[in-house]
Amino acid sequence: MVNISAEIPAGFSLATVHAGFKYKNRPDLALIVSQSPARCAALFTTNLFQAAPVTVAMDNLKKSPVIRAILVNTGQANACTGDMGISNCRKTLEILADLLNMDPEDILPASTGVIGDHLKMDLFEKNLPRLVQNLGSSTGEEAAKAIMTTDTFPKTSSCRAQLSNSMVKFWGMAKGAGMICPNMATMLGFILTDLRIDHKLWQKILADSVNRSFNALTIDGDTSTNDCVLALANGQCKAEISGDEDLNQVVSALDKICSELAYKIVMDAEGGTKVLRVEVKGAKDNSQAKMAASAVGNSPLVKTAMYGQDPNWGRIVAALGRSGAQFNPSKVRVSLAGVEIFSSGRPLEMDRDSVFEPLLKGRDVDIQIHLGAGPGSYTLLASDLTEKYIEINARYRT
Amino acid sequence: MVNISAEIPAGFSLATVHAGFKYKNRPDLALIVSQSPARCAALFTTNLFQAAPVTVAMDNLKKSPVIRAILVNTGQANACTGDMGISNCRKTLEILADLLNMDPEDILPASTGVIGDHLKMDLFEKNLPRLVQNLGSSTGEEAAKAIMTTDTFPKTSSCRAQLSNSMVKFWGMAKGAGMICPNMATMLGFILTDLRIDHKLWQKILADSVNRSFNALTIDGDTSTNDCVLALANGQCKAEISGDEDLNQVVSALDKICSELAYKIVMDAEGGTKVLRVEVKGAKDNSQAKMAASAVGNSPLVKTAMYGQDPNWGRIVAALGRSGAQFNPSKVRVSLAGVEIFSSGRPLEMDRDSVFEPLLKGRDVDIQIHLGAGPGSYTLLASDLTEKYIEINARYRT
Repeated sequence: MVNISAEIPAGFSLATVHAGFKYKNRPDLALIVSQSPARCAALFTTNLFQAAPVTVAMDNLKKSPVIRAILVNTGQANACTGDMGISNCRKTLEILADLLNMDPEDILPASTGVIGDHLKMDLFEKNLPRLVQNLGSSTGEEAAKAIMTTDTFPKTSSCRAQLSNSMVKFWGMAKGAGMICPNMATMLGFILTDLRIDHKLWQKILADSVNRSFNALTIDGDTSTNDCVLALANGQCKAEISGDEDLNQVVSALDKICSELAYKIVMDAEGGTKVLRVEVKGAKDNSQAKMAASAVGNSPLVKTAMYGQDPNWGRIVAALGRSGAQFNPSKVRVSLAGVEIFSSGRPLEMDRDSVFEPLLKGRDVDIQIHLGAGPGSYTLLASDLTEKYIEINARYRT
Repeated sequence: MVNISAEIPAGFSLATVHAGFKYKNRPDLALIVSQSPARCAALFTTNLFQAAPVTVAMDNLKKSPVIRAILVNTGQANACTGDMGISNCRKTLEILADLLNMDPEDILPASTGVIGDHLKMDLFEKNLPRLVQNLGSSTGEEAAKAIMTTDTFPKTSSCRAQLSNSMVKFWGMAKGAGMICPNMATMLGFILTDLRIDHKLWQKILADSVNRSFNALTIDGDTSTNDCVLALANGQCKAEISGDEDLNQVVSALDKICSELAYKIVMDAEGGTKVLRVEVKGAKDNSQAKMAASAVGNSPLVKTAMYGQDPNWGRIVAALGRSGAQFNPSKVRVSLAGVEIFSSGRPLEMDRDSVFEPLLKGRDVDIQIHLGAGPGSYTLLASDLTEKYIEINARYRT
């Protein structure tokens, strides 16, 4: 049970297999195993329709937040599958626990794929032994490939943090391309570290980091039934946090992993050509800043304008005006790609087409907004909206 | 000053002219004049960025809700135009007031078109005299054409109500195709009646009727800086409301006008091929029903599924689950085009493709949802989302 990728934190092993759930010629079942019990911080979808693996994972974590393995399948989301969905999910954990010589409660399940379809139990039974045999033979990249649905590339991120007593490794992978497309349900994130850390602190810094990254992005405003982020800390490197400087190092490392994965999800947005960074400052408070940023980042008109490389400040201010955030319209300032385009209730005089033509060509576009109403701020990553998004989502059949 | 269309209520005259503001070969300036002072009920955009004509109309109505005329231009929205926008707007009313021998405060302005562009004052000066000369020579259909922007057809509605002492006429026109597209800012509605009615009651029943119609539709979730609905009652037919039966007749007539115009706006949605009627029942209360209906009607994934004629119940329930409405997922029932497709947390067993293929072909699709949580209900009209919407809004240049 050694790992072949240098970036994977100590004591974790990965495996993948092509079980044939849905996609051809692509691994579709992934396993993460920690050599020693790992503290698991976890965040789950807030959608009222919770998929079976979400329910089972929450149950297992309630019994104990100390976890040994994560099993992820793609193809079937096992959502809206009733009692049979729950018992199928538990059954897969029981088979795997037997093979790994663990308790089923030591393993967390995650599924992504079509809502309403049941897990293909015969394929689990046939392939789980092969998966366990493969343990340690898969790279991080291969594991990230095995959890993709409509994703066009695997999404991983890794970094190291130098603490006062040791070096710690962090590694993460995520999938997601429609944010959050309930058919291909949807955003999953897995983070591994060999840090030794108190469970409560681990949960808190994960939640903060996810709020700044995965929760601060939007592709189409929809959220799925299967979303989860699971973070395992197995303590293998013996490093512990001692003092604020160490804590800052860990928080930065986790932020780097989460924000890099979040960026890659938006970069891979269904049909997307842009990553819009919507930064709102000067709101009454942070929650009003979030309302303003969300209105802009979710506006189909802003998204289509950015796709069309049109410096359409009118759509941005109109979205701000309906966002629910409170401000004086004459105090609002808007910059696009670093150039101020609107202030004092009026567009600035300039030859907009020639100024913005070169600036809006690239993938990354910054939309900076100052509401002039207070100290609140919020930053959101958003995709644009294209014909390709429509095509993907109108042609996809249930 | 007589009117040439039989459906126009007594004492109102219409005029249109091609001033050349933006569109070629299409009238773009419209005038409504009431022979006698009319009580005006009015509703305006809630967007914090208010266009100059909205500010001026609200000012004039504050002085007195008794109005003689409405002047509407298309091409320039006169929004985000600062103090100059306000003074330009007032100037157009002064010129017109001189020509009509009225006070400028007797006239309400409305503008639709590109945000940020100033009114073309030279064209107003040149064409207002011609417009006044034309008074009485335009049909309702022609007036409705003169207020269009990206609309593909003029939107009018008319009806009569038999009150106990007389027959009353109602007529309305509206424009709107992106709901609400801030470039082509955007939804305007004008309603005329020869009823004699108390102003407070008129305002109240208009507000109720608009809540059930114009406020209960969504194309892209965006709202504009120029939206308004103005309703004039000039008392020319001498009919008054006496008793509840008469009031019901008037409310029904106004509902018919507003809902017919609202339907036509959704029918003309930019790139739209469907009119989705999202009916939510069984919510905890009406506001939760509205949250649920809005989440479904605004979901890009539901909209693209309906465009693709795909009975994709998964996207509907996932939108419900994130809507913020509270319910027990196992009690939710969903019908599509009259056929129950989801209940008890599970899709119903059927050959979905063959059942729904004929049902999802037409323009009108009903999505009926019962949340099983209380007496609240809400119905929303929504468009679908197509490649054509993207094309229109990505290619349109500021």
